[in-house]
Amino acid sequence: MQALTKIAPDRTELKKLPIPRYGARDVLVHVRSAALCGTDLHVYNWNSWAQGAGIHLPVVMGHECCGDVVAFGSEVKGIEAGDKVVAETHIPCGECYQCQNGEQHICHNLKMFSIHTDGCFAEYAVIPAACARKIPREIPYDVGALMEPVGTALRAVAAAQVGGKSVVVVGCGPIGLFAVAAAAALGAAKIIATDSSAFRLAVAEKLNVDMALHSADKNNVQAVLGATGGYGADAVIEASGSREGIKQSFQLLRKGGRVVLVGLPDNPVELDLVKDVVFKEAKIIGIHGREMFKTWRQMENLLVSGKLVVDPVITHILPLACWRDGFELAKSGQACKVIYHP
Amino acid sequence: MQALTKIAPDRTELKKLPIPRYGARDVLVHVRSAALCGTDLHVYNWNSWAQGAGIHLPVVMGHECCGDVVAFGSEVKGIEAGDKVVAETHIPCGECYQCQNGEQHICHNLKMFSIHTDGCFAEYAVIPAACARKIPREIPYDVGALMEPVGTALRAVAAAQVGGKSVVVVGCGPIGLFAVAAAAALGAAKIIATDSSAFRLAVAEKLNVDMALHSADKNNVQAVLGATGGYGADAVIEASGSREGIKQSFQLLRKGGRVVLVGLPDNPVELDLVKDVVFKEAKIIGIHGREMFKTWRQMENLLVSGKLVVDPVITHILPLACWRDGFELAKSGQACKVIYHP
Amino acid sequence: MQALTKIAPDRTELKKLPIPRYGARDVLVHVRSAALCGTDLHVYNWNSWAQGAGIHLPVVMGHECCGDVVAFGSEVKGIEAGDKVVAETHIPCGECYQCQNGEQHICHNLKMFSIHTDGCFAEYAVIPAACARKIPREIPYDVGALMEPVGTALRAVAAAQVGGKSVVVVGCGPIGLFAVAAAAALGAAKIIATDSSAFRLAVAEKLNVDMALHSADKNNVQAVLGATGGYGADAVIEASGSREGIKQSFQLLRKGGRVVLVGLPDNPVELDLVKDVVFKEAKIIGIHGREMFKTWRQMENLLVSGKLVVDPVITHILPLACWRDGFELAKSGQACKVIYHP
Amino acid sequence: MQALTKIAPDRTELKKLPIPRYGARDVLVHVRSAALCGTDLHVYNWNSWAQGAGIHLPVVMGHECCGDVVAFGSEVKGIEAGDKVVAETHIPCGECYQCQNGEQHICHNLKMFSIHTDGCFAEYAVIPAACARKIPREIPYDVGALMEPVGTALRAVAAAQVGGKSVVVVGCGPIGLFAVAAAAALGAAKIIATDSSAFRLAVAEKLNVDMALHSADKNNVQAVLGATGGYGADAVIEASGSREGIKQSFQLLRKGGRVVLVGLPDNPVELDLVKDVVFKEAKIIGIHGREMFKTWRQMENLLVSGKLVVDPVITHILPLACWRDGFELAKSGQACKVIYHP
Repeated sequence: MQALTKIAPDRTELKKLPIPRYGARDVLVHVRSAALCGTDLHVYNWNSWAQGAGIHLPVVMGHECCGDVVAFGSEVKGIEAGDKVVAETHIPCGECYQCQNGEQHICHNLKMFSIHTDGCFAEYAVIPAACARKIPREIPYDVGALMEPVGTALRAVAAAQVGGKSVVVVGCGPIGLFAVAAAAALGAAKIIATDSSAFRLAVAEKLNVDMALHSADKNNVQAVLGATGGYGADAVIEASGSREGIKQSFQLLRKGGRVVLVGLPDNPVELDLVKDVVFKEAKIIGIHGREMFKTWRQMENLLVSGKLVVDPVITHILPLACWRDGFELAKSGQACKVIYHP
Repeated sequence: MQALTKIAPDRTELKKLPIPRYGARDVLVHVRSAALCGTDLHVYNWNSWAQGAGIHLPVVMGHECCGDVVAFGSEVKGIEAGDKVVAETHIPCGECYQCQNGEQHICHNLKMFSIHTDGCFAEYAVIPAACARKIPREIPYDVGALMEPVGTALRAVAAAQVGGKSVVVVGCGPIGLFAVAAAAALGAAKIIATDSSAFRLAVAEKLNVDMALHSADKNNVQAVLGATGGYGADAVIEASGSREGIKQSFQLLRKGGRVVLVGLPDNPVELDLVKDVVFKEAKIIGIHGREMFKTWRQMENLLVSGKLVVDPVITHILPLACWRDGFELAKSGQACKVIYHP
Repeated sequence: MQALTKIAPDRTELKKLPIPRYGARDVLVHVRSAALCGTDLHVYNWNSWAQGAGIHLPVVMGHECCGDVVAFGSEVKGIEAGDKVVAETHIPCGECYQCQNGEQHICHNLKMFSIHTDGCFAEYAVIPAACARKIPREIPYDVGALMEPVGTALRAVAAAQVGGKSVVVVGCGPIGLFAVAAAAALGAAKIIATDSSAFRLAVAEKLNVDMALHSADKNNVQAVLGATGGYGADAVIEASGSREGIKQSFQLLRKGGRVVLVGLPDNPVELDLVKDVVFKEAKIIGIHGREMFKTWRQMENLLVSGKLVVDPVITHILPLACWRDGFELAKSGQACKVIYHP
Repeated sequence: MQALTKIAPDRTELKKLPIPRYGARDVLVHVRSAALCGTDLHVYNWNSWAQGAGIHLPVVMGHECCGDVVAFGSEVKGIEAGDKVVAETHIPCGECYQCQNGEQHICHNLKMFSIHTDGCFAEYAVIPAACARKIPREIPYDVGALMEPVGTALRAVAAAQVGGKSVVVVGCGPIGLFAVAAAAALGAAKIIATDSSAFRLAVAEKLNVDMALHSADKNNVQAVLGATGGYGADAVIEASGSREGIKQSFQLLRKGGRVVLVGLPDNPVELDLVKDVVFKEAKIIGIHGREMFKTWRQMENLLVSGKLVVDPVITHILPLACWRDGFELAKSGQACKVIYHP
């Protein structure tokens, strides 16, 4: 089979590999759609994060995917050949405190699909049964391939408690855009989005934000206060990962509001904890992935019902052979989600 | 002014009355729209509930209304002449445990507008400042007049935690229909409604329920189980107040689900607590009105945003002079909400 | 080995049996302490509940136990020989909606230890690995044998949110007494207990209740209102399972309070839902066992710290050979928890 | 009357003043006990915070106090002469979003007793009725004078959800010590405290912490991990307000845990949001005072029941005439709470 492989720090290639073997607790999947994520770019560029992430080269890249089950190991229960599955990328140990506390997605011994195992930019992939999520047939493969980041965004929005409230999504990368879509699905009364790219703000508009603000605009805080009776928004989803975005999140927030952090800043960020957190009684919630599998079921229900619409975020669908074009598009800022068909 | 007045147990009349006086903590309102509620029929019929409710005759009837502030007492803060207001019908004492615990809507010494005071089926009404809710200009008077029951329904749905979940609304009287609308606004993935009236189910269809079931149909439980993977619904809003509806609510519910009780049965109801509550780990939540004023703000946001749509529930708008037609329509079962314009 | 066996509807005997075989996902345990539960009496008496519970005779009785791991199957992870374990009696399937939603204790396909498998009134018992809970060494065997019902009580009290609040425990059987202990551990400010047995109320006094009321006393409601400023208690734990106890629970409750149902009434119970639930905005929560394994960890922490004290509830410790005396004691009402040492 | 008055930036004096006048919505209180707070030292020293706090000189200092109602204004309800009251220092407007959302303690237009009004280091004080809390007679004046900071600590601990869990209190100033006491009252299974002062750690020991760690000790993180099975604590209450304390809070925390911020750092603090918040899924909660009046009732119940014990934190009781000694003691680090009797 063809598989996009990181071979060495400076070498990434589409390689011919045998169909992979699977263990007693694994599922073998025929990959039908896979999506490019920022993490893949980090691995491709072998930046400092990638160097420290515990990746053993060579590795098949990619972790966002949807496909059909072809075979499975002897200890696997609840999965059959032909099932449509998506890779939940968190691989929990099942035994630690968190795993026994309903928080297996933040397992103390967490492994990551495509970091600690081979990934899915290939015709076939092996997914541990513990993180192979069977999804309803009605969800198309290309939407299935997005469910890992969509689930992160949905969970962030659920944690923000937006029903009937105002929410600002700071940063319109894929997670931010999915958060806009999720906020609309979960009944946010007013959705405001900010980003530094006109291209991305245009996608946000397609997702029906009530206000799209360029992050360089000096009147942003004023605009959000104006739209919220002078109080600030009930909730902010920080998905930019930028120092400025994070700091501004607290200025946009009303007293007693919630800031959900999903974006990953490169460096530590200085916060005015007295003014922005203690006196404001802000609640700050870090989100790392999806609850297994509470978030998944909620997401499946919403996707099947048509109330959660994420397709506008897919800007390009390419055969895996054109993988290099996908990486270029992603870097250019003129793409949101790039999908590969292996 | 003209005011629909309950004069004696067997006498209800449109009477000419002086514009009412208001106290230091009251607001005088020019009523622009008022809605007929089941309670008004009870008072009209002077049934056993009405006889025991502590009503002193004569009384001006009606409690669901929207209008403009004309004047207000010396101790009133935060209200100005010309403000558009709605009567929150719960009048809290402000001093009891519940009032000091953020639960003034279930005040230990609760008084009710139009039960313990004159009501709003009149050109002018006096509303205690503690329950005169100023609403945004954008909300039309006729929608404003519905906000009291809409708020009850919205709160019931919020308590049911429906985002991305399945919910059954049992009973499509006005509160049930508003619950359907609220469930759609707050992101329920699947909304099923039941009622014994084809007329009401047709309104539910206009509000985009996913499934409308006649309550006499013997396959209802099977249909709901079928639509929920065999588990039962995540939540049930009981708005029928019927013995059968209440008992069926638990059959329609999944293990671990939530039943929100809003309907008011005439008599005690026998429940199989072991099977339906303990082993099922049902959570049952009684709802009596709106949180003051948390629910109101949420509702105002959703109405202004256009995400909460309740107009299809208004089936008739009449001048107050035709009040008798309204009562007849309400009794006939061929109306949902009847609105009067005084 | 010696094992107390229900052989036929009218025959229960201590029988000599071979040490049981265990499967790939099982744990073999040397039972060091086991406790008698009301359910065991039902099975012994082969009452209507027992007849319908799906028990295949002959069966080794008993489900509350603590012991040491002797051996385990090939697919078992996280358990070693010599570990001290307790049987969590709920055996979840791991695949249904509830199991994938963090609610495996109310699994859609729930099996019960000692109902659908052999139990623990024996020298050795086989516990499915999915419900063999390893506990800290510091917890004595006899306390370990109580953890199944203690956990139910602790979870009921946690759901009642008693910190700094007033709580009434209705019914001082073992679960009720454990609820008294748990309420003290979790910071209830005022703990009131009711029961019809002076013997049991005396044990409640040893657990430091603030007020012990005989359930036949006509002034109970008045006493609770008097002790709560006239409002009623913030929470009620219903552990009597009696019709009267359940009905009284709502009279003892303040507006907006919580009723946690743990007791199992023999028949359906008639409730005045309007007065007691809707207008009172009661929250009713059914509890069936322990969250797996959130409740367990909380319980282990509290037992090890000495802040949860349950020993006074153990009134008798007998060798298994004297099993008949234990059943008699339990029936007599002059015992709380009876422990067997096999 | 004698009143400790800040007259000018460099001048603080015990002055003879007339008994103050009170308005229609005020309560006049005979102060029986008042406590010295860190804020009072800031005002005394007229540091940069004090200069910017909006204080109009001269002002009577002090805000933590308990006394008896002597008289009250014409619009005051629910208070009588002779009532024992404590000053809740937050004065809400009653009309803003937060005030109408059950969050009046973080009112958008918040005023503070003794900052925007005269305070309580005097024989008589005027307290706005909106923040005069009537307390049970059983609570002694000197404990009553502590309830403002005790309430902040209790609320922080309640937000940390410590029942059956492990908690670290970082910083053993008065608020930290009260948090230790509150954690014990609310059922924390393991309480660890850190501070840089041996004097303060000794008081923490009197409050029965399970482990008292000197903050300069390099093995602190290791010690906390060791005491929590290697995972870190379920919750951290940050009450030091120091940069190091805040940074360490996240190292002491388990994945998925809660950090409650009460301490007030002088400067912005740099946080590693990726490692400490997003990947760890930390929940950070800012706490500014007490919920009005939910926290108060909980606190009153716990104090009356004897389950919340705060007396060991009082190290000195002085007549107001010796006010200067109190300030010296507070600065010396050889005192915790200093009480004045006016």
